[in-house]
Amino acid sequence: MSDDERTLREVMASWMAASSAGDVPKVLSLMADDAVFLVPGRPPFGKEEFAAESQAMRDVRLEGTNEIEELKVIGDWAFCISRVAVTVTPRDGPPFRRAGHTLTLFRRGPSGAWVLARDANLMTGE
Amino acid sequence: MSDDERTLREVMASWMAASSAGDVPKVLSLMADDAVFLVPGRPPFGKEEFAAESQAMRDVRLEGTNEIEELKVIGDWAFCISRVAVTVTPRDGPPFRRAGHTLTLFRRGPSGAWVLARDANLMTGE
Repeated sequence: MSDDERTLREVMASWMAASSAGDVPKVLSLMADDAVFLVPGRPPFGKEEFAAESQAMRDVRLEGTNEIEELKVIGDWAFCISRVAVTVTPRDGPPFRRAGHTLTLFRRGPSGAWVLARDANLMTGE
Repeated sequence: MSDDERTLREVMASWMAASSAGDVPKVLSLMADDAVFLVPGRPPFGKEEFAAESQAMRDVRLEGTNEIEELKVIGDWAFCISRVAVTVTPRDGPPFRRAGHTLTLFRRGPSGAWVLARDANLMTGE
């Protein structure tokens, strides 16, 4: 495994850990300022909208796994196909599970750090 | 616009035209042998499964548009975010519409031709 691949795996693990911990600033630090998120049933959205929704969800408990099925580095870009499964526990409600695949593009930022740049998330309720 | 960008736009236009015409061999010629397709609610699938489903759908009329929102070439790879909308008319049923975004990776094949390599399709019924 190359250094870049190792680093990208660490970025994804940090993302999941920070999401679970409700550490929104940490999650935001792992994405590009011009990141674009695609999910079914709504228009693409960016970092600002991601931040607002994450803030609103801080009370929600989230536990998940991220299994990397393919990871390929292409110069200063990389793509990854993962299978993600999360259990979401709202403050006042029963837990529910969401699972599915993601196709994510990462980019090496100006500082040399890898950040998430584009993300298509195909998770659905189970 | 670079030559590669122009070619990629032609590949996508050919894809839509061949899909509408039910020209399965043409669509298959525009994808890599190891292409991976991601859609919500099912595991990733490859060229063989795509071919079988397309054959089964040949009687279905399909008309659509593909609006490219972002297209970036990265060496021998490229990614594209599109908004796709299609009207599907089954042989024995009323037409219905599906729309949404796609995040697609293309790769320059050994012959130099660009082919679709990975595709996350977030279209939903409207």
